[in-house]
Amino acid sequence: MNGMIPKKIKGFRDIDPELNELRQQVVEKAGKVYELYGFRHWDTPVLEYAENLGKYLPDKETVAEGVYSFRNPETEPVYKNDGSELRDENDLVVMDNHHIAMRYDLTAPLARMYAEELFIQSLKGQLTTNNAPLFRRYQYGPVYRFEAKLDPGRFREFWQLDFDTVGTADVAADAEACMVLSDALEAIGLEKKSFVVRLNNRKILSGFLSGIGIAGEEDEASVLRVIDKIDKIGIDGITAELGKGRKDSSGAVIPGLGLENKTVNAIANYFERFVEDKSRESTIEALFSLNAKNEKFTEGMAELTRIDELLRASGYDEEKVLFSPSIVRGLGYYTGPVYEVESLLTFTDRKGNTRRVGSICGGGRYDGLVERLLGIKVPATGASIGVDRLCELLLLSGEATLQQKGTVLITVFDDELMGEYQKISAELRSAGIPAEIYYGAQRGLKKQIGYADKMNSPVCILLGSDEFEKGVVTVRNLALGKELSATIENKDEWKRKVQKEVSRNELVETIKEMLGRK
Amino acid sequence: MNGMIPKKIKGFRDIDPELNELRQQVVEKAGKVYELYGFRHWDTPVLEYAENLGKYLPDKETVAEGVYSFRNPETEPVYKNDGSELRDENDLVVMDNHHIAMRYDLTAPLARMYAEELFIQSLKGQLTTNNAPLFRRYQYGPVYRFEAKLDPGRFREFWQLDFDTVGTADVAADAEACMVLSDALEAIGLEKKSFVVRLNNRKILSGFLSGIGIAGEEDEASVLRVIDKIDKIGIDGITAELGKGRKDSSGAVIPGLGLENKTVNAIANYFERFVEDKSRESTIEALFSLNAKNEKFTEGMAELTRIDELLRASGYDEEKVLFSPSIVRGLGYYTGPVYEVESLLTFTDRKGNTRRVGSICGGGRYDGLVERLLGIKVPATGASIGVDRLCELLLLSGEATLQQKGTVLITVFDDELMGEYQKISAELRSAGIPAEIYYGAQRGLKKQIGYADKMNSPVCILLGSDEFEKGVVTVRNLALGKELSATIENKDEWKRKVQKEVSRNELVETIKEMLGRK
Repeated sequence: MNGMIPKKIKGFRDIDPELNELRQQVVEKAGKVYELYGFRHWDTPVLEYAENLGKYLPDKETVAEGVYSFRNPETEPVYKNDGSELRDENDLVVMDNHHIAMRYDLTAPLARMYAEELFIQSLKGQLTTNNAPLFRRYQYGPVYRFEAKLDPGRFREFWQLDFDTVGTADVAADAEACMVLSDALEAIGLEKKSFVVRLNNRKILSGFLSGIGIAGEEDEASVLRVIDKIDKIGIDGITAELGKGRKDSSGAVIPGLGLENKTVNAIANYFERFVEDKSRESTIEALFSLNAKNEKFTEGMAELTRIDELLRASGYDEEKVLFSPSIVRGLGYYTGPVYEVESLLTFTDRKGNTRRVGSICGGGRYDGLVERLLGIKVPATGASIGVDRLCELLLLSGEATLQQKGTVLITVFDDELMGEYQKISAELRSAGIPAEIYYGAQRGLKKQIGYADKMNSPVCILLGSDEFEKGVVTVRNLALGKELSATIENKDEWKRKVQKEVSRNELVETIKEMLGRK
Repeated sequence: MNGMIPKKIKGFRDIDPELNELRQQVVEKAGKVYELYGFRHWDTPVLEYAENLGKYLPDKETVAEGVYSFRNPETEPVYKNDGSELRDENDLVVMDNHHIAMRYDLTAPLARMYAEELFIQSLKGQLTTNNAPLFRRYQYGPVYRFEAKLDPGRFREFWQLDFDTVGTADVAADAEACMVLSDALEAIGLEKKSFVVRLNNRKILSGFLSGIGIAGEEDEASVLRVIDKIDKIGIDGITAELGKGRKDSSGAVIPGLGLENKTVNAIANYFERFVEDKSRESTIEALFSLNAKNEKFTEGMAELTRIDELLRASGYDEEKVLFSPSIVRGLGYYTGPVYEVESLLTFTDRKGNTRRVGSICGGGRYDGLVERLLGIKVPATGASIGVDRLCELLLLSGEATLQQKGTVLITVFDDELMGEYQKISAELRSAGIPAEIYYGAQRGLKKQIGYADKMNSPVCILLGSDEFEKGVVTVRNLALGKELSATIENKDEWKRKVQKEVSRNELVETIKEMLGRK
């Protein structure tokens, strides 16, 4: 060894068979729902040119160090904006080891895939916002974030499950996204009452802010960044940060934005007004009563009203989708409707406190993402389920349990009988029964039964040369054995009940019976 | 943009829904077989400390540049061999940005996972080869290789599907590995006669070579490296390379190993003797007749004989598993039985030549891999299916076809009716029928039908305001339409046959009928 011991990189983890099974189920069940809506399963590489991924990390403050990025070992041409290769004074193509990066989400690679397909057409000037083709896909898999400070329970490699519609400005696609999320989570097994899809519209927030004097992208972004912390620091915290600043729990000074009291109060009022859930109709009314008469706000309200109508037409009422005007969603690129799914399930943590997992899905409309690559606006909308977080939630809340599948263990006593063990194993597999032979070096019965227990084997088979000659096999019902060991102390009695000798010919049938497969 | 255009990194690719589906099926079907044998599905991270992965790349000559590797952005302690942290003269822990790397296979991460679990125990001196626990797992997913020269059809990101048994020296586990491969490929849909599992034993090769005077690890490795090229350069090519060297097709000089003629001829004879497939019994006889009387050879022959017995006991005859004494397998770490699966399927390439895909799985016993991390020998054996290569084979040979799933397309003519379109869509989904609404910007009928065609929609729905008021909907059978357009020229007649107006209440039932779901 040379400087490192055998261990995983910090923030990474191995996934055991039980969690793998749960993850697989989540992906399959949600994937089926996505397909019912016409989304198709595409996959993209884990590595991309950093240039193509852009810098849309959720928390803007960690952009530079948030991604696993390195130089491509291969040199390739440097390109100009017009798609041609850059040449030096001697007319030689300038080569470089371009920065490549591990994807930090599945949306940026989608934009690359879409843009790559249309790049030539766009260079020729044949592509416009109006004729940009419709593209609907879903995708799942690991994404990578290098968070320097890793909170407990957070990982640097985790799975997302995304669906997106590229090439549509119609907010019907946003309404649909809320339906997809609602259906998918139900299909995964979350009860209707245990989660809620919340929708807001950036235009409404933005219009409201401009109505109280906060205009311009930068000022708006600073304010939204503070507001987005509401879950962590509460309304008092954001009030302080919008104004004069505050001290955090460690005593460190967090400087404020220095907004006037009047402005801070207006913002605080807005959020207090929408802290409690109302019917969608009442929320729309309350928003109208704000009297923010600018174009942005009006546009946002029109979109919200239309989404309400469409949800209602398809039968998605307040139990499934709520309007929450206080939702910001971190990502800088959202341009219209934004949505997230809040889990209402609670669990008791180690200290005995009742807790919620919170947000398990997020998404929204991002009309500028493809533009960065193609130079023309291509409206798009979509959402992402945090697969690992959802699995954690299902487990914490008891809505799912990790189930270890057991295989029949064929214990090994005699090397001469290995052929017979193999034969038994093949017979069981042919009957669809998972079976494994004990190949371990230490062959004591205790060791072998210990292995069976660890692997949750329901049944084990014991066969020595005496039995082989008599044409019989001993079968032990390990599952029953565990049960009875609590009540039966006499070892002989216990053995009589859980173990029996059967004719070799009847072995497979006996095991089927023990496993309840007959 | 800044130096890069929207495109994938060279050697990477996007996977479309049809190929994704095929890949998924391969993994699922083989995975079920693996589970029948008691292998459990574990997953490990894509990134590992380079130190833990080691340098076991298939082609030894590209070790340095074969892996995507970079420095961890986080600094961490440097460890000493005894597991403690290295300290400088001031007793401060020495920190470093350790090299991390994307996994190049699934075996090295398995060794890390196994070693990590047992590291403390091994430090305490509690772990021996004899009590190293049995661990059986399968895993699938992408692996990464930076091959500087990329052959056509090869990729730098591709999927493998591995199963391994760690902690057993029993060659019964090797016999079983051949059965697993045979069963898995059958389950995937390859016909029995279209592939063959080939087994050899490194000890036999090694024993034979030492018998003719090639002893010592380095000499043996150089000879094996040449022999491994037999598929590419033929027996004449390897004869030349073992002796005086040769010129390749470009005229470049490939230096030879300079072995004596007698030795070269002995090797050539060995390979010529085993070029044709024989029964396992005849192969064993032919090997015994080589009269190589050293310990290694004898050991290898004993293992081969035992594997033959076990295969026979489980019903795996020569149609399923053959012994091929000429197989080397590139990987340096194999120590005993090695196996590979050769596809016998042929296909016609673009130039009209009949070709074979060749090797689609490989594996063997590697008793030294864990040792590198834990300091004690832990015998292990396993194999890997090249998922992407297998998919390619299934497609090239016509044993699988890519099937595009179509969804019912609800065309859009009137924004006012979007609620109704949503309602129809929800009704269809409730009946289990994938349906999608056309959200594209360009709403001409031709555009919408063009989209339906591209998406392979079997049926589309046409609904304008006139029809809505009358309570009817028009349904077009696109699949039938395509069929009839070849024979019917009259447009009205065609329309009459493929399109009909139905009552809104009967819509879902009508579509079910058209899709043959009733």
